[in-house]
Amino acid sequence: MSVLNVTQKLIRSHLIEGELVPGREIGLKIDQALMQDATGTLVQLELEAMKLKRAQTEVAVQYVDHNLLQTDFKNADDHLFLHSAAQKFGLWFSRPGNGVSHPVHMERFGKPGKTLVGSDSHTCAAGSLGMLAIGTGGLDVAVAIAGQPYYVKMPEVMGVKLTGKLPPWVSAKDVILEMLRRHDVKGGVGKIIEYYGEGLQHLSAMDRHVIANMGAELGATTTVFPSDGETRRFLKSQGREEDWTEWIADEGAEYDLHDEIILDDLVPLIALPTSPGNVVPVREVEGKPISQVVIGSSANPGLRDFWIAGAIVKDRFTSPEVSFDINPTSRQIIQNMIDNRAFANLIKAGARFHQSGCMGCIGMGQAPASGTISLRTMPRNFPDRSGTKDDQVHLCSPETAAASALTGKITDPRDMEKLYGMTYPEYKTPEKEIINTDMLVAPPENGEDIILKKGPNIKSLPHIPPLKDSYKIPVLLKMGDNISTDEILKAGAEVLPFRSNLPEISKFSYTVIDETFYDRAMESRDEFGGHIVVAGNNYAQGSSREHAAIAPKYLGQVAVIAKSYARIAWQNLANFGILPLGFVNNDDYEKIEQEDIVRFKDLIANVKNRENIMVAIEKKNGETLTIPASHSLSDRQIDVLLKGGIINDYKEKLAG
Amino acid sequence: MSVLNVTQKLIRSHLIEGELVPGREIGLKIDQALMQDATGTLVQLELEAMKLKRAQTEVAVQYVDHNLLQTDFKNADDHLFLHSAAQKFGLWFSRPGNGVSHPVHMERFGKPGKTLVGSDSHTCAAGSLGMLAIGTGGLDVAVAIAGQPYYVKMPEVMGVKLTGKLPPWVSAKDVILEMLRRHDVKGGVGKIIEYYGEGLQHLSAMDRHVIANMGAELGATTTVFPSDGETRRFLKSQGREEDWTEWIADEGAEYDLHDEIILDDLVPLIALPTSPGNVVPVREVEGKPISQVVIGSSANPGLRDFWIAGAIVKDRFTSPEVSFDINPTSRQIIQNMIDNRAFANLIKAGARFHQSGCMGCIGMGQAPASGTISLRTMPRNFPDRSGTKDDQVHLCSPETAAASALTGKITDPRDMEKLYGMTYPEYKTPEKEIINTDMLVAPPENGEDIILKKGPNIKSLPHIPPLKDSYKIPVLLKMGDNISTDEILKAGAEVLPFRSNLPEISKFSYTVIDETFYDRAMESRDEFGGHIVVAGNNYAQGSSREHAAIAPKYLGQVAVIAKSYARIAWQNLANFGILPLGFVNNDDYEKIEQEDIVRFKDLIANVKNRENIMVAIEKKNGETLTIPASHSLSDRQIDVLLKGGIINDYKEKLAG
Repeated sequence: MSVLNVTQKLIRSHLIEGELVPGREIGLKIDQALMQDATGTLVQLELEAMKLKRAQTEVAVQYVDHNLLQTDFKNADDHLFLHSAAQKFGLWFSRPGNGVSHPVHMERFGKPGKTLVGSDSHTCAAGSLGMLAIGTGGLDVAVAIAGQPYYVKMPEVMGVKLTGKLPPWVSAKDVILEMLRRHDVKGGVGKIIEYYGEGLQHLSAMDRHVIANMGAELGATTTVFPSDGETRRFLKSQGREEDWTEWIADEGAEYDLHDEIILDDLVPLIALPTSPGNVVPVREVEGKPISQVVIGSSANPGLRDFWIAGAIVKDRFTSPEVSFDINPTSRQIIQNMIDNRAFANLIKAGARFHQSGCMGCIGMGQAPASGTISLRTMPRNFPDRSGTKDDQVHLCSPETAAASALTGKITDPRDMEKLYGMTYPEYKTPEKEIINTDMLVAPPENGEDIILKKGPNIKSLPHIPPLKDSYKIPVLLKMGDNISTDEILKAGAEVLPFRSNLPEISKFSYTVIDETFYDRAMESRDEFGGHIVVAGNNYAQGSSREHAAIAPKYLGQVAVIAKSYARIAWQNLANFGILPLGFVNNDDYEKIEQEDIVRFKDLIANVKNRENIMVAIEKKNGETLTIPASHSLSDRQIDVLLKGGIINDYKEKLAG
Repeated sequence: MSVLNVTQKLIRSHLIEGELVPGREIGLKIDQALMQDATGTLVQLELEAMKLKRAQTEVAVQYVDHNLLQTDFKNADDHLFLHSAAQKFGLWFSRPGNGVSHPVHMERFGKPGKTLVGSDSHTCAAGSLGMLAIGTGGLDVAVAIAGQPYYVKMPEVMGVKLTGKLPPWVSAKDVILEMLRRHDVKGGVGKIIEYYGEGLQHLSAMDRHVIANMGAELGATTTVFPSDGETRRFLKSQGREEDWTEWIADEGAEYDLHDEIILDDLVPLIALPTSPGNVVPVREVEGKPISQVVIGSSANPGLRDFWIAGAIVKDRFTSPEVSFDINPTSRQIIQNMIDNRAFANLIKAGARFHQSGCMGCIGMGQAPASGTISLRTMPRNFPDRSGTKDDQVHLCSPETAAASALTGKITDPRDMEKLYGMTYPEYKTPEKEIINTDMLVAPPENGEDIILKKGPNIKSLPHIPPLKDSYKIPVLLKMGDNISTDEILKAGAEVLPFRSNLPEISKFSYTVIDETFYDRAMESRDEFGGHIVVAGNNYAQGSSREHAAIAPKYLGQVAVIAKSYARIAWQNLANFGILPLGFVNNDDYEKIEQEDIVRFKDLIANVKNRENIMVAIEKKNGETLTIPASHSLSDRQIDVLLKGGIINDYKEKLAG
């Protein structure tokens, strides 16, 4: 098999364990890592717990882009903490206001042929440069920074052939919206999407970023573009031509799955509430009044995207009914926007400029008014994500957004010709952009003496005790099917501020299901040394948040017994030392109740040898029975779990 | 008395009732009115309740500058509501992002010789143009918009003579800090500060704004500058030379009080935590490490202020330990900053730019990290106002702020010469500024058909019933001395979002003192038709917030009996129809207890005739006694109170 596609080349060149067979676990060498602040505080606390001396990756960067609204001390304290941790552990620090992680990483650090893991689901955007870039949980990133392999099930590779050229008023956003129209939000699950074909020549590196970024919305493991002449041009414009290497598919390379987009046939598209997969042509919904337009975010981060919006509104004034919010991606972009007049054009037309960061994309500001339509170039429009209940967020290109800001209603940008006599403004990619690296702080040669700056809300992770051989512990909660991580540990403004404070955030464990859980768990931790919970099918579905494992673990959770698990959550439980058990007979789910007391014995040997784990149940009325349970962990996972999780495992390796 | 100072001229030309004798109530004709959004929603609901057809002032403007962070639907909904109300009632609407009310008002609407009331304490900033501009409660503004006089006790006039010229690195902020150093935060109470003298010729209109704005921190009723050649130049630069008229003190004019500042003698000053009156020379505290610098706000709003900061940091980079936050005052300022390179200089040096508005000045964002020093050009540093507990906010000039941002510690800007070999950059006032009026929406000719846009959190004010002749109602709360409006209705993130929703915000009435108050008040409203409360001395001191009167009124409060009242609160109670009674014998305070039942009869006649109001008290044990109470309301106030408050009074006038 000497004929390879780009994905296969990237994986081959980093393969440490396993084979390139879809569905099998592979271990990959990781070259680069990135964190944003909302997930990064926990990563830094994990690195602290792992006693990491210095990052082992070629490049690791701690960005600050999510929590920029400082309405109390917590976010500002987190910024100082992250800065000190970056210095201590040998990471670059991208200061608050420097910009959104994905485009800044692409401009300053991205390198064709490299692997990247990031604690943010849109990490896949770096696939635009011919990288293998995967968004994952924070602990996976911490472990990669510590020099350990990243484990993932080998995905299928879907080749998407691009032919032709985009027509006027249609841009890269419409390409990924077309993919979402075809495949919806689950269409990419278990797959890597690789783009190829002659249509690529008309898509700039930043256009490719737009497409790769929202690959996350397809559910794809990641997206891969080749590294070609355009990639070289982009790196040159960033003063980094020497970082370029060519990564293109071999002639005759094959894909597990196939699709094709004829770019000439695309029209302006729009994702209706409340899913990025709910895509229709703009024409179908034109004329609806809007109250807000937001331009920016990691899904349309490029200079071109702001320039085209500026060119469309130039010397015109946006509708007085519309809040025209601009969310510039980075300081560097702002400087270039000042230079190419996009900034002045937008301000003059009525823009509200915000600091560089994720803003409304993650519900941190600019929530729209009730019952009104907000048009955004952002990647997601899940219900209430904007911060407004029953919100009406639509996703579209900068062209559609800017045209609609002028008219005050959803407008197909092709109508700019008849409405304003305007021809499609032609963007000329600058040979060299203004480059600004001043807000990227390099790590010192040696950070060992640096003291972590911890405000009152930042608490070190406690030691996680390893699994014991026998337990006598209560069943604290019995749940049904499809319990989500939002029910295990909810998000939102009440809870998120405690993301750096495990003792505090643990108080919210399972509160959506049972408000008494925390108190009962603390009691059993004292009295019995822990607890278990029982669930039906698809336990812990939804977001990948690690807190849904580490918080229950902190409260003494020894094991979960469930009919089945969501994939990432199952992995997170093992990573944090909670035993994820299944019923040998699913009917036994009926036999175990909340408040039962269960006994385990010979647990360590049974887990190790994959023998049935006998759960001896003692009912309140004194009745007893025993049911069998089992696990499906890999040898590696068993090893990690018995030590109390990955952090302990790493500490042991470090000591050894 | 033909020889007058400017203040006397302004008052004389607008006097409707009363005489210019300090301490006596005068009624003034009001030409202009302004509201910001945090107080404006209530003003608009009051105008709605008053059934106002159209504003009677020459100019009234609803600004949006406080609540720009949209973390949920409430602020965005308020913006739409305020826009629709402005259209309905004939007000200008300054859209979110257009800028901070005070500098925008000065640039676009301020006129020498006019009176202005505003529902914001810094309204006095317009005194910089030779106006009589007074910050007051929202209902006073609503009433002025409806064409009624504004009543205030005639203050004393303090003349402050300015001589000489400010030395390099010292600017207008240091002048007002010097005033605060001399007179502290109570030194201006009951006074109007009028500046005069040859030193004025070197202070631009925007410099005067800096000084007039923070007159609020002296506790002054307002500040007055003459309208002279510089005022004319300023108005010309704003394209409004025709709005200029001369207002200068007559030769030999006298003042009730005197002070003098020799400008040449001033040095860079700084207000230490946690009072604007806690002023020392920068030299005394230089070298302390800082974590944040914020430039902007209504206290340093001018183009010069941003330009000088930009010139100081130009081609240098701010300390990596400092968050360098820029809070541009208005869109017009941003455009001019782009034009004069200040914007690029600041961004390049590491600035985080925020949208135009009040931001951290009113605790809406950019709270500093715990235990660290924040240096701000803002007007106030009261404890925790920034949003961070035990904050360390220092107030200073843009020069001191920018120099300190470079070094990372508190720095006397005069040290720029020895540290960086820099001479003081000389600002050249532009002959004409870029003017941008696009985000100021004019009212339509006729707004009667416009429907108010009310999101789910915006509720019309209920009808307030007029005082009845007899009551039998319980004493729901007995309080001690110095109860503040923060205890009657607290501020903060939990409560403020309900500022447009009286039924909801009323739930927080007196919760600081007694959490059961709301439930008990609702019960007595149903059972008895109301309640009274009892207090010691200085009832309702502190902020002027109207909610501390209207919310208890909504819950059925008929009267307060207190030993004494804070001035504004006493006025607010009468305005909203609550009878503010005093004890005839203060010892009787001991005789009335919580849970007593009191009876009033012949109440209307007794209030009207200023006869003692007999409070018949029935104890729980059946015991009864009677104590006398009285009031000190003016005839006008009696009239208003008996109708249930000013809103009802106005409605009656309208019907008549």
